[in-house]
Formats: sequence, C-alpha cells, structure tokens
Amino acid sequence: MNRVYNFGAGPAMLPTSVMEQARDEMLNWQGIGVSVVEISHRSKEFEVLLTETDELMRELAGLPEDFEILYMHGSAQMQFAAVPLNLLDLNPAHKAAYLETGNFAQLARKEASRFGNISIAASSEETGFDRIPAFDPASLDPDTSYVHLTSNNTIFGTRWHQFPDTGKIPLVADMTSELMSRKLNFEQFGLIFAGLQKNLGPSGMATVLVRKELLGHAMSQTPALLNYVTYQKNHSMPNTINTFAIYIMNLMLKWLRDQGGVAAIEQLNAKKAGLLYDIIDNNDFYIGSAHKDHRSHMNVTFNLADSTLDKKFLDEALVRGLYALKGHRLVGGIRASIYNAMPMEGCQELADFMKDFAKQNG
Amino acid sequence: MNRVYNFGAGPAMLPTSVMEQARDEMLNWQGIGVSVVEISHRSKEFEVLLTETDELMRELAGLPEDFEILYMHGSAQMQFAAVPLNLLDLNPAHKAAYLETGNFAQLARKEASRFGNISIAASSEETGFDRIPAFDPASLDPDTSYVHLTSNNTIFGTRWHQFPDTGKIPLVADMTSELMSRKLNFEQFGLIFAGLQKNLGPSGMATVLVRKELLGHAMSQTPALLNYVTYQKNHSMPNTINTFAIYIMNLMLKWLRDQGGVAAIEQLNAKKAGLLYDIIDNNDFYIGSAHKDHRSHMNVTFNLADSTLDKKFLDEALVRGLYALKGHRLVGGIRASIYNAMPMEGCQELADFMKDFAKQNG
Repeated sequence: MNRVYNFGAGPAMLPTSVMEQARDEMLNWQGIGVSVVEISHRSKEFEVLLTETDELMRELAGLPEDFEILYMHGSAQMQFAAVPLNLLDLNPAHKAAYLETGNFAQLARKEASRFGNISIAASSEETGFDRIPAFDPASLDPDTSYVHLTSNNTIFGTRWHQFPDTGKIPLVADMTSELMSRKLNFEQFGLIFAGLQKNLGPSGMATVLVRKELLGHAMSQTPALLNYVTYQKNHSMPNTINTFAIYIMNLMLKWLRDQGGVAAIEQLNAKKAGLLYDIIDNNDFYIGSAHKDHRSHMNVTFNLADSTLDKKFLDEALVRGLYALKGHRLVGGIRASIYNAMPMEGCQELADFMKDFAKQNG
Repeated sequence: MNRVYNFGAGPAMLPTSVMEQARDEMLNWQGIGVSVVEISHRSKEFEVLLTETDELMRELAGLPEDFEILYMHGSAQMQFAAVPLNLLDLNPAHKAAYLETGNFAQLARKEASRFGNISIAASSEETGFDRIPAFDPASLDPDTSYVHLTSNNTIFGTRWHQFPDTGKIPLVADMTSELMSRKLNFEQFGLIFAGLQKNLGPSGMATVLVRKELLGHAMSQTPALLNYVTYQKNHSMPNTINTFAIYIMNLMLKWLRDQGGVAAIEQLNAKKAGLLYDIIDNNDFYIGSAHKDHRSHMNVTFNLADSTLDKKFLDEALVRGLYALKGHRLVGGIRASIYNAMPMEGCQELADFMKDFAKQNG
C-alpha cells in the first residue's frame, strides 16, 4: 500500500515531504554522522536547531516579544496541572473559571480542582457539547486568576470562532488541535498551550506560549518540571528535551512557511472543511454533529442517517485509501480530522467517496 | 561523513540496524500506509506494539509478575518528583533517605525536599563524587518511606556494583544509564526508573518498574500524569503516549534480544570498559577519575595528565570518527560513554587512538 490519507484525530498525519526528509536524515543528520535523536541536547548542533525553531514559531505565529515560547514534557494534558500550579497564585483567592465545551475541557477542569477553587463559567454539556456555550465575561468574579477554554473540540467538532474578551483576567487556551492553523490576536490571550501531535509534530511534547508577566507565581508544591520558570531559565532544557519532537516540529514549521504561512493555511483549511460540510448540508444521508455556527475547521464530525451503515462506510473508505475515519468512542459516528497536513486532494477524495457512498446506499 | 562512533552521554547512539529499520519504515509502517508516529495511540496496531514492548521488557529484564511496567512522560527527572509524590505517604512520617553519589542524585534529593522530610543517608561529595560512599542500612530510621540511589553516575563515572540491602524499606533506583545493561535481582528493589535515552531509545520518556504493592499511596496534590496509578489503570496511555519513543524502544529491545539478552551484553560491556580502563591504568598519560572499586561500565571518565592537551585530544579523536568525548561541563576532562549500542569495535578504535595519542604527545 502506498501512503494513505489519514483522517485520524492524532497523532495525525504529517506532510509526506517532512517524513521523507526525516527518513533521509535518519542515519546522518547535517553530515555529522549520527541522527538528530542520537546527539546531546547540549550539543551546538541541537542548540542551533532549537533556536531556529523558536524563531520560526515566533515569526509564523506573529508572536509578540512579551510572550515566552516553552517546550514541555507530556503533551497537552500535563498542562492541565501546570496551568493551575503556575497561575492560580496570581490572585490569593486561588480561583479559576473553566468553559466546558467537551471532554478535554472537563478533564482540564477536574485536574485544576486538585489545586484551587475552580468553577464552570459556561457549559454546553446539556446539549451534548454540540455547540460553544453563551458566555458573558462580565459574570466573572474580578478576583479570578484565569479563564480556561479549549479552542477546538476534536471529539465534538466545534470551535470558538471568536474568543471572549476577559479583560484583565488572563485567558488560557488549550489550542492542541488548532495552533498554527488559524491566525490569532495574541492580545486576547495570557497563555496558549498545545500538544504537538496534530499540527506540529509527533506526540509527547507540548508548546506553551505565555505572557512573560504571568510567570514567577508557581505554587511551592509545583514539581520543577511543571514550573514554567524552570523552562524559561533553561531554554526549555532543564533536563533532556524530547529531541525528536523538536526536530519534527522544526521541519513542520518550515513546511508551513513554504505553504505561505498561517494566513494561507487558514484559508485552505476553511476550503477543505467547507467541501465536506457542503456535502453534509446538501444531503439527507449525512447529519452534521455540531451546530452550524460553531463548526470546527479541523475535525468534521457527522453521522450517517442510518447508523447501521457506519461499518460499511468505514470499510469502503479504507479500500479507497481513506484511513481512520471512525468517530471518537464517546460519540461514535464519523470524524474526518483535517489538520494542516491534510492536503486539499485528501478532502476531495473523501468528498467524492461520500457522494458515491450516499448515491449507492441512499 | 559515514556513521561515527558517538561517545556522547545521551541522548546516545543507537544501533545502526535500529536506525536503518526506523528509516525504512518512516513513510509506511507495517504496510498501513503511514508512519508509526502518524497513527492514533488507540489504534489496534499501536496497542499491539505497546503490548509486545511490555512482553519484551519483562522477558529480557527477567521482571517478576509483581512488578508493573509503566511508560511516563518527561525523562528521568520527572521521576524526581513522581517518586516522592507516590511513595512518601507509605509512612505517615513522610521520610525518605537519599544516597548522594553525584549531580543527579542531588537533584533528585532537592526535588523530593519539596514534598517531605528528606535526609542524606550517605554522600561522597567530600571526595568530589569519585566513589560510592559507605552506607549502613541499619542507620536508617525504620519509618523511612523509601531509600533513593542513582545506580550509575554518568558525570563522575561511578556505579554501585552491589546494591545495599534496605530490608523492608523499599529501595528506589534511578537506573537511567544502566537499565538493561546489567542483570538485576529485582528482589532488592521497590522501584526502578530510567529515562530511555541511554540504552533504550530516544529522549522524552521514562520507564518505571514498580512493585505493585507500593502503588495507590499518591499524595492528593499529585498531578494525574505524575500518579503511577493513572498509568497503571490505562496501560500507560491516560493521554497520548510518546509513540516514537515506544517504537524505538521496541526495536531496541529486539536488538538486545538478538545480542543474546542482558547477561550477554553485560559481559560485553565489562570487556568494552576493561579495554579502556586497562590503558588508563597502564599509562601515566591518562588518569582515571573514579575510584577503581566503583568504576562505571557505561561512562569511562578520565583526565589527561596534561590538561592543556584536552582540546588536541578531542579534535584528533573527531578526525578519527570518535565523536563527543568531552567530559561533562561540571568536571571537564574526557568521558567515553559506552552504552549497549556502542560496539566493541568502537571501544577498540578509541583504545587504539588513546595509545597513539599518548605515544605522540607523551
């Protein structure tokens, strides 16, 4: 079998050109006679790679100088603890407000509850997380240390199209499935974190973009490797960093630059998603899961009107090289994850298959 | 340049055959049309890989059934917090005793001090960590929750040849630079942890071998992803695991099996180290750093009698394809890290070079 179009939610497909370069350099990186995963993170060569990655990230994201870039162990969920441990002490009330839009938002809220006074500022649980809930920032207590949201909900296929203005209260966004796929106004955020394994690389690491003025308030019980300052002071290498993750992230950022950057990929992502939503909207055979106003551009979730056909749909898709379309075990149905690395051709293939399948089985 | 012999302390060289397989499978793993780093950790294919890795680990280590195998985020240093958070509560006194044999043992002790009453049971700091200190387990308070040691000290080139018998008090060993390089009697240990990046794979992950009866005592302030039970309950996948690390670890374990297993590689490691120590001992040009009775088989540390020749030594070594021999910045001098993946030929090349260099410059 040749390369397939992989619609899995993550760890997700990476561009073939990135994987080819990783392959070609696997025994001898930059002519030094070993792979990048076999050298010291303290070597000159690796330091250069890390600094270049910072610069690419800052340039492509349009990240202001008053934000720090950190690379931390443990994917996004380690941040579910790191965020409260580092930020709750910004105000002696130890309060944070969470916006519940799905499974990961809930997990984040539950983990934070270990460390302070956590409230649910808004939730769409009642409607099965099919939408982004209404939320009025004026309802927040002024002594709230931060507000947490999940920008894109991979399981339910929703996203925050606009972000709430929380004024002086720092807004924290889990952007694991969206970072570098859409333009951001960083003025709106205090901290953004993302696991790499959707748009930025392999699994096992998270990147944290945090306003410098928020640092230095970690609780005394914070493990050193969950304290942002530990990473800030050591160029994210207080201990051995995940070198493979940085290497692939570096290649991913260069690839993104070659695609025209975030603005260009954001437009392409909207087109890719639009292709699939159009079929869903113009066909009774498919039923979209998310409210139309809050649809994700990364995870297109839908059901077959006749769910007994799900298995047939998945099996026939696989035969056409369309891989991992099964919905998350919490909700079932179909999910097409179409991160930056999914080319337009992959979405077109899926769209064609969806039309054919509906015709043949409708 | 072809492949070099890489004597770096870690992330360390991996066997060329492992890197070749990783290269060959980088675009299409097991014929599924994508790389192993591009698929879901929940996929059937990955679950099979993970289970096989468990089985290889258990078989090759000779690990008894009453030990759990966990794979956790964050290299070994994350364990400096995880160990006290999970084990201090074994006794209400919240006491642990640390054996200080070097930099990483000290870091572990300092991190643990955040969470309980930590004492130094023995230390060789006075003699510059050039040996393993004398230690009488009878000196321990009986209400000590655990004793921590670092089995091999990469910076100073020492190791515990025999492990102390701590009786009913669990012995915790950081074996980052030794796990799977020497046979172990697991009866002596309560918990062993190791970052992968020396003998087991790439950086960013640690494996934890822990006696099941010690689990379930984590303090309430323990972040979910530092709690051993979270990993135990979810086959080490409470969240997205570092899939690349598991993949390479799997290949490394199969390679180790092909070498004859741990007993065979332990003998080879002793021979490799012996080759270098013989030159140091039979030549006034070189001075070994570690006490002869406590010499590491993984990190051979020494100084040139005339340290002004260090740079010349390193430069000429590099020309002969002998890479990363510089000692750690804390101690200077020369360090040859010769983990499992360093073949006998690499040590022979280095030995020949050392003899030539001494002759030409002595």
